[in-house]
Amino acid sequence: MSLIPESVRIVEVGARDGLQNESAPFDSAFREELIRKLLCCGFQNIEMGAFVSPHWVPKMADTGPILQHFDTADKSKFSVLVPNLQGLEVAIQHGVKEIAVFAAASEMFSQKNINCSIKESIQRFKLVCNEAIQNGIRVRGYISCVLGCPYQGSVNPIIVADIAERLLHLGCYEVSLGDTIGVGTANRAAELIQVVTRHNPVRHFAVHYHDTYGQALANIYAALQQGIATIDSAVSGLGGCPYAPGAAGNVATEDVLYMLDGMNIEHNINSKAVTETAHFVLNKLGKSPISRVSAATRNL
Amino acid sequence: MSLIPESVRIVEVGARDGLQNESAPFDSAFREELIRKLLCCGFQNIEMGAFVSPHWVPKMADTGPILQHFDTADKSKFSVLVPNLQGLEVAIQHGVKEIAVFAAASEMFSQKNINCSIKESIQRFKLVCNEAIQNGIRVRGYISCVLGCPYQGSVNPIIVADIAERLLHLGCYEVSLGDTIGVGTANRAAELIQVVTRHNPVRHFAVHYHDTYGQALANIYAALQQGIATIDSAVSGLGGCPYAPGAAGNVATEDVLYMLDGMNIEHNINSKAVTETAHFVLNKLGKSPISRVSAATRNL
Repeated sequence: MSLIPESVRIVEVGARDGLQNESAPFDSAFREELIRKLLCCGFQNIEMGAFVSPHWVPKMADTGPILQHFDTADKSKFSVLVPNLQGLEVAIQHGVKEIAVFAAASEMFSQKNINCSIKESIQRFKLVCNEAIQNGIRVRGYISCVLGCPYQGSVNPIIVADIAERLLHLGCYEVSLGDTIGVGTANRAAELIQVVTRHNPVRHFAVHYHDTYGQALANIYAALQQGIATIDSAVSGLGGCPYAPGAAGNVATEDVLYMLDGMNIEHNINSKAVTETAHFVLNKLGKSPISRVSAATRNL
Repeated sequence: MSLIPESVRIVEVGARDGLQNESAPFDSAFREELIRKLLCCGFQNIEMGAFVSPHWVPKMADTGPILQHFDTADKSKFSVLVPNLQGLEVAIQHGVKEIAVFAAASEMFSQKNINCSIKESIQRFKLVCNEAIQNGIRVRGYISCVLGCPYQGSVNPIIVADIAERLLHLGCYEVSLGDTIGVGTANRAAELIQVVTRHNPVRHFAVHYHDTYGQALANIYAALQQGIATIDSAVSGLGGCPYAPGAAGNVATEDVLYMLDGMNIEHNINSKAVTETAHFVLNKLGKSPISRVSAATRNL
């Protein structure tokens, strides 16, 4: 029996994960306009920003000001990255309804990315999750480097499953499995999902693939075959990989939608509007098409 | 039981299908140098040119002169496109050991591309195949538009299976299923292979996917799951789609190899040399990286 889902939920991460890793300059007005366009496309889940130190992530420093321009209905579709209680407080002040916490599956990546061990990060998230849930805020968990780490190389799926278990136990409604550097291939993507779903149902997992080596869509197809029904993607394939300058970023939402449309999998997003938004992004950033769909449709 | 093969044969089509559809100008010396580099990469199957009317395909007019610079051992690894007996005669004169004939799965595409009906094309190939086989030349069959046609839209898998049956009956050792305009998605790629292999073993089939909408590698993964063990691809993702100006071309060999390497599927090609050849191609043509692997490795 096929596990392929009848409908898929897309988590659009272009305005945060995508733009944060873009080398091209952009301003706050552009980021806000992008978010408005994503709402018009029909996305119900938009990762719109982060309450992190502006010293480390200056590109997300405008998250608060941008949020103030949206109403409660819009905000109910947003999520914001939050590393600690401080960030959570700001999120609460801004009426955020969903936050995301981010752990790593690699000890070295955890140290380099968030300056603490995996265990310490989980301790910290415990406080954040408790406080968030008490304030009626949903928490999404990310695990990065699930299919490989730029420092330590291979990553054990058992470790990923263990961290996922902990995040779900802390109250995360979903854990997004991030192939942060895009080194995974379809077989390993499928195997990882088999391992993490031994103890937790597949509906609690999302996949978050980067297209550094062109594998993202094949990996998504493999994930769909394992029953995955939530996919993170970024309009126009925004983003990049700090460990491979010039590489592709997140899998492009429009390429994902092309596949879902071809498979008759529902997604409730306006695919044409997404492609138009991809062209808007590329024009504003002065970039050549990144996604295949944006390249194929640019001159039509 | 998984049908995924333990080893895969790559048919490298960059020097013909790829370059023929490139908009960037290039000369004969470049095409010959590319073919030499492909030999050094270890490819045993290189589609190196075509004996077609130089009026229609001027970019392949140098196929004869280039062939003269290679010895018998090299030539045993080449295939050359041949539309009719005239082309076959030239191929025989040049010591070619493998030709390819090309049919279409869409009546309208057949008329527009080779100026005859599907039935007429098969009649013509009958003469070509007979003559080739009598001369000890292997014949490969292509079917284009197997997953969609730019003129008629959808294509019936039964028609593809019927044409494949006829080509195999004429003596083709293999039929390559071409998604010429890259509109197929993984589920339909898999279904087509299920249909064509009802009456002929999967070892007689190859897949030939274009990456117009980013679907090629997912489709290849789906094809591998159906037991397909021969993949057509082009170094650096050379090529394009006449119906979508600016679109991506053939699936990039280096992206395919990245997937095969990740899946521990043997291919006997030097992946690193292929990536270097991709960079050579891009530099010579003055193009930005097309494949994800070439983009990710360009600045390292």
